[in-house]
Amino acid sequence: MMPERGFEQSEFEDRVARAQAAMQKADLAAILLSTEADVRYFSGYLTRFWESPTRPWFLVVPAVGAPVAVIPSIGAALMGKTWISDIRTWPAPRPNDDGVTLLADTLGELAGDGRVGVPSGMESHLRMPLADFGRLQAAGIKFGDDSGIMRALRGVKSEAEIAKIAHACGIAGRAFDRVPEIAGVGVPLEQVFRGFQSLLLQEGADWVPYLAGGAGPFGYDDVISPADATPLRGGDVLMLDTGAVWDGYFCDYDRNFAIGAPNARAEAGWAQLMEATEAGLQAAQVGATAADVFHAMAHVVGGGETAGRLGHGLGMQLTEGLSLIAADHTVLEEGMVITLEPGVEVAGGAILVHEENIVIREGGAEFLSPRSQGALPVI
Amino acid sequence: MMPERGFEQSEFEDRVARAQAAMQKADLAAILLSTEADVRYFSGYLTRFWESPTRPWFLVVPAVGAPVAVIPSIGAALMGKTWISDIRTWPAPRPNDDGVTLLADTLGELAGDGRVGVPSGMESHLRMPLADFGRLQAAGIKFGDDSGIMRALRGVKSEAEIAKIAHACGIAGRAFDRVPEIAGVGVPLEQVFRGFQSLLLQEGADWVPYLAGGAGPFGYDDVISPADATPLRGGDVLMLDTGAVWDGYFCDYDRNFAIGAPNARAEAGWAQLMEATEAGLQAAQVGATAADVFHAMAHVVGGGETAGRLGHGLGMQLTEGLSLIAADHTVLEEGMVITLEPGVEVAGGAILVHEENIVIREGGAEFLSPRSQGALPVI
Repeated sequence: MMPERGFEQSEFEDRVARAQAAMQKADLAAILLSTEADVRYFSGYLTRFWESPTRPWFLVVPAVGAPVAVIPSIGAALMGKTWISDIRTWPAPRPNDDGVTLLADTLGELAGDGRVGVPSGMESHLRMPLADFGRLQAAGIKFGDDSGIMRALRGVKSEAEIAKIAHACGIAGRAFDRVPEIAGVGVPLEQVFRGFQSLLLQEGADWVPYLAGGAGPFGYDDVISPADATPLRGGDVLMLDTGAVWDGYFCDYDRNFAIGAPNARAEAGWAQLMEATEAGLQAAQVGATAADVFHAMAHVVGGGETAGRLGHGLGMQLTEGLSLIAADHTVLEEGMVITLEPGVEVAGGAILVHEENIVIREGGAEFLSPRSQGALPVI
Repeated sequence: MMPERGFEQSEFEDRVARAQAAMQKADLAAILLSTEADVRYFSGYLTRFWESPTRPWFLVVPAVGAPVAVIPSIGAALMGKTWISDIRTWPAPRPNDDGVTLLADTLGELAGDGRVGVPSGMESHLRMPLADFGRLQAAGIKFGDDSGIMRALRGVKSEAEIAKIAHACGIAGRAFDRVPEIAGVGVPLEQVFRGFQSLLLQEGADWVPYLAGGAGPFGYDDVISPADATPLRGGDVLMLDTGAVWDGYFCDYDRNFAIGAPNARAEAGWAQLMEATEAGLQAAQVGATAADVFHAMAHVVGGGETAGRLGHGLGMQLTEGLSLIAADHTVLEEGMVITLEPGVEVAGGAILVHEENIVIREGGAEFLSPRSQGALPVI
């Protein structure tokens, strides 16, 4: 069943309340947000217009009171449809003052002499010109790190968020089931990519921000390349890895297919991936750490500390939050959504990667992607 | 005819040479690049993996010598297929030092005590954690603005780049011709959006990073909203605006369709848009400024200084470089690719926007999008 689009206003109010509780502990007078996902997290402002780098967009969450949007006037109509009521605009782009004075005044009003937190740690960036950030500092605004508040908040999903991710996973699952319609011996990989994106749209994806994959006799040489015109050959293993979006939430998982009869090495690698996924699932308990889940899978696929990143958080972005690596000691909580993504080297330069999406639950993690089990699928 | 994918190595060498000539004038010892388009501009590194915010990626262009890639090891295989030969990697994500030491060492080696330019002006941002940028500064690297070098370089396209944009425009043109297959009375707008993205893929787009649009009796209330489930009604004007990508280059233009018989106000607005486009085309001469083109169109559509942005540069990003606004005095040069994007208010809260893509040429601009002329198309 399709979830409702959007969220109840109470969900945004709850997010703001949790942020404000954390801000008081961290002695922050406000948080300044500038990226698509962070602005959307508190506002619900959903548009693909962020693809245009021209204009900066800001949301200020004060330690007390409602969030304030400081945005280009082109966004006023759409922001006006969200629950945000204090919307301040300027006619961007405006070369001599592209929102800087308006933002400085807003921060001065909301934060006074207090510190303004800006996400500054891993995965973050400030989406505004450095020179303009310098002008805000020169205007006397005191900036500091957000103390990881955004990362911690966004890492634990609400049931409404989980339902959206699950819906995106279901869309991709139906598209993956139809891959035999678009892939086979002789079909160029780039045609497979186009066809698969169309299948995702047909099955209900709003858009397809991410698709990667590869094909080769034992596996592929990396998992981030765009497609080329090489036709699929009998004996290849084809991998498609998608981040399809529904209502602003991603799935992120892949599927492997043997083109014709699979070779024994690919089958052996596949069996290892199934075993590693099960080990990751069992380790992904409330109270365990990201590193614990990593080690459980690395124990199966080998590679030890250098096995790479064997999964990550997922939600409003293709990847977000924790990493399943030895150095990440984030403690798993009920409601976190993560990927399990073990990889094995099957032959020199040829790897196989499998990926599933799960939600952490008391009593054991649950699959959001329709779990792959058994033998490597054959087309 | 489909252009070749990628570029000759000489094209990258030429880009680097032009950057280095500008760097010497600006007294910069190196430029540090961190965003997808800037890194790709000199390297040819093309992947959708930037959709994942986890890992920072860097390219350093020294004032003398070849560019150096400082990137996560997951990208080494793909970067190894480009012309870049000095590729330095770290196993990202690595929480305690996510490439910072490697980048600081590289900048120290290539820039010595000289200034390192970072794009800091309009449209730019630094895609790395602020805290890590602070560590680079603390390590003694001297940063400054890039003096607008990247913006100036990327603003003028090579013939190979223009061919890619033209190819993307052709793909979208064929998809727009097929809109009657997917749109009509009773079809929900979100279904039109899905269908149109599929048409773009069928016609040869590699992916569809951007689609916006709207529909209403006289026009639409904004041009950046995602689709909702509202069915098209007879008398609506439907607008679809796409940034479809081929080989890393965008088209960005829209088309309007009357659903059933168009009303007189929409037809009058449409006629104004055709006239404004022609005025923009005539004004878009080598040596004219962005502001000149703006005023030529604003004179037709009205609104004066507040008419909004009536077009912009286009290429590796949906929008890039100059803006057709009164305050942008960028001088047009042969090889610049821009959009003409006039808008008119047809009724209270209802606007119509038309958009075409052109390349600036000695002797007059040429259309890259298949020009719309005559009456408002009817479905």
